Amino acid sequence: MQISKYPQKNEWSELIKRPILKREKLSEIIVDIFNQVEKKGEQALLEFNKKFDGAEVKNIRVSKEEIENAEQLLSRELKNAIHQAKENITQFHTSQITDIKKIETSDNVICWRENRAIEKVGIYIPGGTAPLFSTVLMLAIPAQLAGCKEIILCSPSDKNGNINPAILYTAQLCGVSKIFKVGGAQAIAAMTLGTENIPNVYKIFGPGNQYVVAAKEYAQTYNVAIDMPAGPSEVLVIADEQAIPEFCAADLLSQAEHGNDSQVIFISTDVKIFNETIKETEKQIKELPRNDFARQSLKNSHFLLLNSIDEALEFSNLYAPEHLILAIENFEKYIPEIQNAGSVFLGNYSCESAGDYASGTNHTLPTNGFAKNYSGVSLDSFVKKITFQHLSEKGLQNLGKTIEIMAEAEGLFAHKNAVSIRLKQEK
Amino acid sequence: MQISKYPQKNEWSELIKRPILKREKLSEIIVDIFNQVEKKGEQALLEFNKKFDGAEVKNIRVSKEEIENAEQLLSRELKNAIHQAKENITQFHTSQITDIKKIETSDNVICWRENRAIEKVGIYIPGGTAPLFSTVLMLAIPAQLAGCKEIILCSPSDKNGNINPAILYTAQLCGVSKIFKVGGAQAIAAMTLGTENIPNVYKIFGPGNQYVVAAKEYAQTYNVAIDMPAGPSEVLVIADEQAIPEFCAADLLSQAEHGNDSQVIFISTDVKIFNETIKETEKQIKELPRNDFARQSLKNSHFLLLNSIDEALEFSNLYAPEHLILAIENFEKYIPEIQNAGSVFLGNYSCESAGDYASGTNHTLPTNGFAKNYSGVSLDSFVKKITFQHLSEKGLQNLGKTIEIMAEAEGLFAHKNAVSIRLKQEK
Repeated sequence: MQISKYPQKNEWSELIKRPILKREKLSEIIVDIFNQVEKKGEQALLEFNKKFDGAEVKNIRVSKEEIENAEQLLSRELKNAIHQAKENITQFHTSQITDIKKIETSDNVICWRENRAIEKVGIYIPGGTAPLFSTVLMLAIPAQLAGCKEIILCSPSDKNGNINPAILYTAQLCGVSKIFKVGGAQAIAAMTLGTENIPNVYKIFGPGNQYVVAAKEYAQTYNVAIDMPAGPSEVLVIADEQAIPEFCAADLLSQAEHGNDSQVIFISTDVKIFNETIKETEKQIKELPRNDFARQSLKNSHFLLLNSIDEALEFSNLYAPEHLILAIENFEKYIPEIQNAGSVFLGNYSCESAGDYASGTNHTLPTNGFAKNYSGVSLDSFVKKITFQHLSEKGLQNLGKTIEIMAEAEGLFAHKNAVSIRLKQEK
Repeated sequence: MQISKYPQKNEWSELIKRPILKREKLSEIIVDIFNQVEKKGEQALLEFNKKFDGAEVKNIRVSKEEIENAEQLLSRELKNAIHQAKENITQFHTSQITDIKKIETSDNVICWRENRAIEKVGIYIPGGTAPLFSTVLMLAIPAQLAGCKEIILCSPSDKNGNINPAILYTAQLCGVSKIFKVGGAQAIAAMTLGTENIPNVYKIFGPGNQYVVAAKEYAQTYNVAIDMPAGPSEVLVIADEQAIPEFCAADLLSQAEHGNDSQVIFISTDVKIFNETIKETEKQIKELPRNDFARQSLKNSHFLLLNSIDEALEFSNLYAPEHLILAIENFEKYIPEIQNAGSVFLGNYSCESAGDYASGTNHTLPTNGFAKNYSGVSLDSFVKKITFQHLSEKGLQNLGKTIEIMAEAEGLFAHKNAVSIRLKQEK
């Protein structure tokens, strides 16, 4: 925990720095994995599964029976929760569907955009310490709403060759067409190149470790798109005198438990709330099962006492947090000041967990300062917008001269001629 | 010109291949340019300008006087044309502004998205054979509409240190805040890193040669976003029996004149139109000033006779053209079949030049098959969408149990606790 009281603005550039990531030389490993998958197909996947995950997988594709069994293995309570979350996420992402607006920009010149789903998309769900079925909801729901024809999912199995039933159940519920037992960079290679059973896709979504991140970067050299650049998860909480230290501490820790490299920033304008939140954080951390992660990530985290909410937001815009919690009064007033953030949680009862699971917003968000230039995942991430135009003969007569003059000024005479030949044609 | 009559479907995968791009080993050159710019700032830019473009630049920033002079150097006719194009482009991109829709996904759980402009954007305009002031319109207009605070433009000067006046005039007209005389990879490095006068930006837009393309790719390792991956320009024309061969040929050539590596595909379902379009193309090419480019790119181009419009669209979707012209009757009927394309031009009078310059649609479009997974530039390219949520105490009571169950099932107890501590707090 790094505590700074009223730091000068010239110290801010130090404070907004993310913990330095060890970027290891992964490229050779990744290139080798892609080459092996290209050459040997699923044989390579099975070997890598064994080598990296110690997993004995016989059939790479999850069977119907496994999916049906998964439903039996989950409690009714968990299934109901998944259904409620699905409903809210569906509602919110449905509201992102846009109508076609035809615009007559000049007389008889009509322009518009139409959405088309990206036909084939791939979702990667990591294994590891937490079975992230919530991420399945966040990626498969908008993919299905957008109308993607093929939605495939890859996730590493455990040592016995099984994928967590909550992941299988959620995938099935949200229209995933095929599920494969393959993890890590080899999964990304398989979705990029295609194998005997795994179709190649046009866009790959989902979180992962440094190998997965590097493989997604490399996949782009094969013209595959990815959801967004990656970085460790982070939250910035701004609290004024009406904030509740217990709540603030709980929110900070819910971010800190993600991993060693998570970052947490707490800003208060009130000394009492500031000190009590620090105390509460130290108290609550002791009771957490994942407190090893939380302790590690708190080491890199900043607790800042600042002069005003305006100043706090100025800092926040510079940091560009993935999650921003405004535990302040009159938060409406400050919304227009928010420039750079992935997702914003307003007031004392909008905890980050709500957005992580069930309120309806997407939890796949820009980290590492990318909130300055990227949006989180939404329905838009699964579609392309195609522009259309129709000029009637009259429309081209109206606009033709303008096009001819501009094309000529750029020295592009064939561009000009495409208009001239049509204007001459008229009777 | 490669002519295929009724090719079998198993030959299509060969036909949709783009001409192979010589990807030279640019990375060392690019890394060196970035390093020099980082170390020596504008001194490095001036040296590179001289070395690569033979340009003698004294002041890197274009002065007020130069911009004012530019206006004098343009004909009234050209200025009027630029103004009409600006009006149409503004109209169409204004229609892309979205309202805030607040959604109550559960009782007392309100979620919505708000747009925020990317604060600082950079536009690169190449020098070379054509002064692309139309690209200034296409990039600066939506940047200004989105509300980007800093819109900078870099373009190489000629040997005497001047930028084409049409570029300066258009930039000034569309709200570009600062214009700099620097081209090539060094311009991209300057906008990525910042120099004495050139601010670093969060997203870089615009076309360029292989060095610029490689530099934009490299800029991303500095967390700068780019508009989209690059490739040579291309058009696919589908013509039925009512198409006009002179028009089709003119459209094909307007694409072919772009450069040696442009690609042109013509598909007809009618033998007469097919043969006449080939003849017309050979006739019109002779009259073009840039016919060296056009001839070169026609060598890689395909003229295909197919059985039906449905088959033609199936081919087109596989190819995913940047520009698609439907010179067919009843084009409305076929719109839903279009899956992958950058921009679509409908009927005999919607020539590609219209969209290139003045109809209102954007001409920065996905090439090289990227229409499968990317949209063209639009207002969306200049904003980020931030999600917001507000849960009242009642809202969290309503949704809390669901969040707790899901967090626990993922093994994330601090996530659960952020809810539990709030639910317990109630009286």
